[in-house]
Amino acid sequence: MDPSNDHHKRMDSLNEVNYNDEENDVEYLGDLDGKEDERLWSSMSERNGSMRIPLLRKRTNNTSQIAVIGAKSCPIESLDYEMIENELFKQDWRSRKKVQIFQYVFLKWGLALLIGIGTGLIGFFNNIAVENISGFKLLLTNNLMLQGSYFKAFLAFFGCNMLFAIIAGALCAYIAPAAAGSGIPEVKAYLNGIDAPSILAPSTFFVKIFGSIFGVSAGFVVGKEGPMVHTGACIANLLGQGGSRKYGLTWNWLRYFKNDRDRRDLITCGAAAGVAAAFRAPVGGVLFALEEAASWWRSALLWRTFFTTAMVAIVLRGFIQYCWTGKCGLFGKGGLIMYDVSNEVATYGGYDILAVIVLGVVGGVLGSIYNALIDKVLRIYSIINEKGPSFRVLLVIVISFITTCCAFGLPWLAKCSPCPTDSSVKCPTSGEGNYKRFQCPDGHYNDLASLFLNTNDDAIRNLFSTTIIREFQIPSLFIFFVTIYFLGIITYGIAVPAGLFIPVILAGGVYGRILGRLFQTLSVLDTGLFSLLGAASFLGGTMRMTVSICVILLELTNNLLLLPLVMIVLLISKTVADCFNHGVYDQIVKLKGLPFLEAHAEPYMRHLVAGDAVSGPLVTFSGVEKVETIVHALQSTGHNGFPVIDGPPFSDSPELCGMVLKSHLLVLLKAKYFSEERRLSGRDILKKFSPFDFAKPGTGKGLTLEDISITDEDMEMYIDLHPIINASPYTVLETMSLAKAQILFRQLGLRHMCVVPKSQGRPPIVGILTRHDFMPEHILGLYPQIKSQKH
Amino acid sequence: MDPSNDHHKRMDSLNEVNYNDEENDVEYLGDLDGKEDERLWSSMSERNGSMRIPLLRKRTNNTSQIAVIGAKSCPIESLDYEMIENELFKQDWRSRKKVQIFQYVFLKWGLALLIGIGTGLIGFFNNIAVENISGFKLLLTNNLMLQGSYFKAFLAFFGCNMLFAIIAGALCAYIAPAAAGSGIPEVKAYLNGIDAPSILAPSTFFVKIFGSIFGVSAGFVVGKEGPMVHTGACIANLLGQGGSRKYGLTWNWLRYFKNDRDRRDLITCGAAAGVAAAFRAPVGGVLFALEEAASWWRSALLWRTFFTTAMVAIVLRGFIQYCWTGKCGLFGKGGLIMYDVSNEVATYGGYDILAVIVLGVVGGVLGSIYNALIDKVLRIYSIINEKGPSFRVLLVIVISFITTCCAFGLPWLAKCSPCPTDSSVKCPTSGEGNYKRFQCPDGHYNDLASLFLNTNDDAIRNLFSTTIIREFQIPSLFIFFVTIYFLGIITYGIAVPAGLFIPVILAGGVYGRILGRLFQTLSVLDTGLFSLLGAASFLGGTMRMTVSICVILLELTNNLLLLPLVMIVLLISKTVADCFNHGVYDQIVKLKGLPFLEAHAEPYMRHLVAGDAVSGPLVTFSGVEKVETIVHALQSTGHNGFPVIDGPPFSDSPELCGMVLKSHLLVLLKAKYFSEERRLSGRDILKKFSPFDFAKPGTGKGLTLEDISITDEDMEMYIDLHPIINASPYTVLETMSLAKAQILFRQLGLRHMCVVPKSQGRPPIVGILTRHDFMPEHILGLYPQIKSQKH
Repeated sequence: MDPSNDHHKRMDSLNEVNYNDEENDVEYLGDLDGKEDERLWSSMSERNGSMRIPLLRKRTNNTSQIAVIGAKSCPIESLDYEMIENELFKQDWRSRKKVQIFQYVFLKWGLALLIGIGTGLIGFFNNIAVENISGFKLLLTNNLMLQGSYFKAFLAFFGCNMLFAIIAGALCAYIAPAAAGSGIPEVKAYLNGIDAPSILAPSTFFVKIFGSIFGVSAGFVVGKEGPMVHTGACIANLLGQGGSRKYGLTWNWLRYFKNDRDRRDLITCGAAAGVAAAFRAPVGGVLFALEEAASWWRSALLWRTFFTTAMVAIVLRGFIQYCWTGKCGLFGKGGLIMYDVSNEVATYGGYDILAVIVLGVVGGVLGSIYNALIDKVLRIYSIINEKGPSFRVLLVIVISFITTCCAFGLPWLAKCSPCPTDSSVKCPTSGEGNYKRFQCPDGHYNDLASLFLNTNDDAIRNLFSTTIIREFQIPSLFIFFVTIYFLGIITYGIAVPAGLFIPVILAGGVYGRILGRLFQTLSVLDTGLFSLLGAASFLGGTMRMTVSICVILLELTNNLLLLPLVMIVLLISKTVADCFNHGVYDQIVKLKGLPFLEAHAEPYMRHLVAGDAVSGPLVTFSGVEKVETIVHALQSTGHNGFPVIDGPPFSDSPELCGMVLKSHLLVLLKAKYFSEERRLSGRDILKKFSPFDFAKPGTGKGLTLEDISITDEDMEMYIDLHPIINASPYTVLETMSLAKAQILFRQLGLRHMCVVPKSQGRPPIVGILTRHDFMPEHILGLYPQIKSQKH
Repeated sequence: MDPSNDHHKRMDSLNEVNYNDEENDVEYLGDLDGKEDERLWSSMSERNGSMRIPLLRKRTNNTSQIAVIGAKSCPIESLDYEMIENELFKQDWRSRKKVQIFQYVFLKWGLALLIGIGTGLIGFFNNIAVENISGFKLLLTNNLMLQGSYFKAFLAFFGCNMLFAIIAGALCAYIAPAAAGSGIPEVKAYLNGIDAPSILAPSTFFVKIFGSIFGVSAGFVVGKEGPMVHTGACIANLLGQGGSRKYGLTWNWLRYFKNDRDRRDLITCGAAAGVAAAFRAPVGGVLFALEEAASWWRSALLWRTFFTTAMVAIVLRGFIQYCWTGKCGLFGKGGLIMYDVSNEVATYGGYDILAVIVLGVVGGVLGSIYNALIDKVLRIYSIINEKGPSFRVLLVIVISFITTCCAFGLPWLAKCSPCPTDSSVKCPTSGEGNYKRFQCPDGHYNDLASLFLNTNDDAIRNLFSTTIIREFQIPSLFIFFVTIYFLGIITYGIAVPAGLFIPVILAGGVYGRILGRLFQTLSVLDTGLFSLLGAASFLGGTMRMTVSICVILLELTNNLLLLPLVMIVLLISKTVADCFNHGVYDQIVKLKGLPFLEAHAEPYMRHLVAGDAVSGPLVTFSGVEKVETIVHALQSTGHNGFPVIDGPPFSDSPELCGMVLKSHLLVLLKAKYFSEERRLSGRDILKKFSPFDFAKPGTGKGLTLEDISITDEDMEMYIDLHPIINASPYTVLETMSLAKAQILFRQLGLRHMCVVPKSQGRPPIVGILTRHDFMPEHILGLYPQIKSQKH
């Protein structure tokens, strides 16, 4: 064994593991580059079925810096969670006094408080608006039905739905396409380190709120939970960046939050607050952020997130208590527990365990089919969405029409049930209420109408509970299940803010109830609780979360005794579904072309070393560099970080000095502290800048090269980069296994990682690894011979 | 600015930040080394008040490889969570087929299942044993009191307590001193990467179970929750190592778990299972493991931990249901909810919020005082414990005597209360039950006896509830509070397995109830719920956990509506207490001298670079090394990892090849595949070993140099180290800031980190950083001038 022919050997071993050496089917798509027409790129790649692979297989992978956010293709950027320890940072850090530390700590908690209150308020507003708008529509329809004016009722129902749908669709399509969909995949990607300006922009924020209200009111099978998570994240981002610098609205104290690390923490709090507000589940919110949303977690963050969601809970509780006075219109009967089933005692025996296992398996299978179908539908929709805003609105109209027809048409199929004799509630109900008469004669009610012509929340409450409606007929339940299952699939992906939680809980609740009915003779468990377990199993089957769903359901229903059963059902459904495909959010993240960095490395990465993955031209600077070189490098490459190599006379031999960031270089260029000869002038520069001059802007692109006018004279000058060099970049040896390099990259949240040579007498840096270099598509493109191993 | 005088500059800046340049008060304690008498060292350092600082201030810090585990000083070692990617590993990895992967996955889940079932069983056994032993004692005493034989009752009570205390103390002192105390600090340290053979040894396991049963039965103010966590971790460890290899009891499949990474995951599951079994709180267990116990967390682990605790919940539920038939002796009335308060409706107004804020502040202050006093007491006790096992037992006897006297003597101070008129329960109760007559006339009961002469669980139930006993008198509550508060402090640290949760909940519950009484006129909240909030505030003030305590309390009491108040109270008490000192477990970890690696770096580390912290002699090997050199290095140093440098003729210039581990070297030496000349013979060696020959043994020290007989002839031979070189060690440049180096070290769970030179033409490695090099005491010892900055 000779260590010197190391590379050769490794390549051998790569071939060894290549079990199925099929022909290389890579198609080079010519010399596409980032500046090419975005539309062309998107439609091409989408027609190929997958979003990024054709572009990623090229040797340079800068063309893949585009992903789908909401319903629109946007350029994306990586976030940088590394401490940029340059001279300026250190100088600032040394001079930081107690008062600055106090400002930081105060703001940290103050912002968490504001995020909590803000999200709580919006969550409450959302609820009130939906309940009132939707309630008005349903009241109108039901009253017309009671009067026997069936056609008028249909027109009213249809007109309201269409109006609300068009408002929601138009807001989304014309103002902020990034607000379409759930938003959880985008937030998840952001917290993984992928930024696109539109994800958390103010326009997205406003459209998300109002689009969600009108979308839910329009009767779509969508929830307001995913959008609430996105809204929470937007609030966090907007508060953190503290207004706009352009209009002089920013606050000096907020400068501490003008970096990716602190912004990430805020947005994690925001995501947790969103779930807390949507489900009134503060602990569930924290766990959701931990389990699903966040890629990096610290114990300190747990504590801050917890504080935020506690504030949400307090705000919500206050307002709900206020609404008991009846001043909130049609909203006002709910408590802090959304679907309270605590009155139903959970006793269960052997047959119930069997039923629960069946539920878990069915939930897993249905969940994975759901995910697969959503994937297919999203691919078709993205072609339509690409054609332009008016096509997006058209799609919304079509889906709204289908939904309306189902909701109004299908109840006609149901048989009328006689009203229960022990009627403590009025039956059939005249306006609000759950015993809808629909077409039935007096003294009867239509159980399918009670599910369809109700808000989603009320439908879930009906399904989970036994006290409101004695029993649903199995055919009605079956019709409702099929409708909701498929409507849920075709609705996600249209240009409307659409949460997945409610459709999934609704569909799961129905088939849980069906199974409960089938097991009724054997089982002692209540059918309402079966319905809850069905919802759990379907949630486990689609979203693949465990602890957070468990706690959210617990907080939604306030029945702790059911906990062991919920745990079993979640475990089974997740295990079953994991055999077929990934969780729905992971799938959507991938489908949208977001370069999500997984926590684990792919197996074949163990056979490669860091040096193998380095691609693209390496551009380095000297410690004191000519302005022309820098400007040229910034113009000709899309790189965001450049290694700096110091050579004689500043050091004895060439050595890696550190990294400089493009954004810092631009600030330095704009200030024009140039010198005419190649000399160290950093100390002087240091005095003229505050580190916050280099802070990352909250919105917009920040400084670009076009903003800076460099004269020909300037071009010949020199600039000392030392003050802005991050002297502690994370480095790996070129022989480090790629798997371990990825783990380092991911665990520390890096944007750039330097690969340094192992042997001496070579330039002190081999290359830079970035997020895209770790993407499986990129690596498999470089080494097509290991491709077949993956399957 | 000249980069070449970089070091000089940094040292200048260190002096700049040294605000208070007081005189250097470091005392060098002579040339102590690791082989010196352990007893001498421990007693010396303990008399100095702090355990490690005097030793750590020396330039080489190998003398600090000792810490206190339970009540005994033990040598400690670091764990290694890095993937050791050497040729052997890669060969094995490539040859792994589907069946091996199946074995691993099957075992992973199978072990989680077994840990869950095992911990559930032991938790249940623990409960039954305590309820029966303790119940028998209390029944006897109360019956004698009812008969008026006060002195006989005292003798019975005193005798039982003393007997149980001596059993528990003797087990702990003579068999397994590591089982003393809570065990949570030890488990926390283990999961941070600190190993001592006795932490999870079988003897510790057995003593922990039985010591805890007798300790709790002896009436000590201790809980069985901490010990359950430790027990769960022990079960996980014993199952993972799969019996003993010595007796041929190990199972071939278990070889996959013979490494620190997989063992860590198992033990995390075990710790979670422990909490789940102790509090019957499956979700709380997962969160406890996440928030308090574990230092490294992955999303996959959440899912596996959740599975484990679900199994615990199912086992417990099954047995509790079985016990309803009355076959478990005095145990049998409890449900899955330990302190059910769900019947009490939580309504609260403005004054209640005020009361809750007061509770939070009081809880924070009391909690931090509690921590400070425990610290003091532990320092005193460690001197006594050092003197030998008989002193330890003596200490147990003294504390038992004090506890017995308090429990039996103090109820005499209480005034007799008349029995409630609406007596659905018998009053005074004849045997079991809560209305203890004690010295009172018939028709009256002694409320203090109802608290003292009861199991801790029943006392807590009484405090939380309003339905069992109408009201306690404020003086009684006050006496009980003071007694429990101080008994809790003086009991922790004696040689008995002693959990902290129950004393804290008990003391917190009492002052919560006192405050509830004080606010009674203003408040609408029930005093029982005040008691619960008091317990929450005191838990927050001592343990400083948030989400996990919140969920544990929720699962203990099944009252979800109280959640917002519990959250507020926890937030306030933790914030207040954090102003004074650290959480009790962190404090104990530090006090015991465990080199716990924090997630964040100390501020002054930003001013130092990795090269500054390197200390001690560096021992390197060549790729093909003489046996004599290796044996000598192993004999003369305590190092566990050695860098390997390849030079000509194997490479063009000297280059860092990787790291070899001591344990791997020993295996290679034992096999004696030596060659007479300096040549590469690795390929042949590769074929003769399986990677599991290098697996880390579960218990015991593994192979030592004494086990290997090397002849003088062997000494002159050569050995090819290449097959066992970890070719991908994590490296940092010597100029990397120490803060960032620590973050890398901690995030990736390393044991060794190589520091490589920045400039060329020097040896390819500067030094090795290990856990101890990042300890603040070590760094402040090296650079005493920055010491004053810390305060």
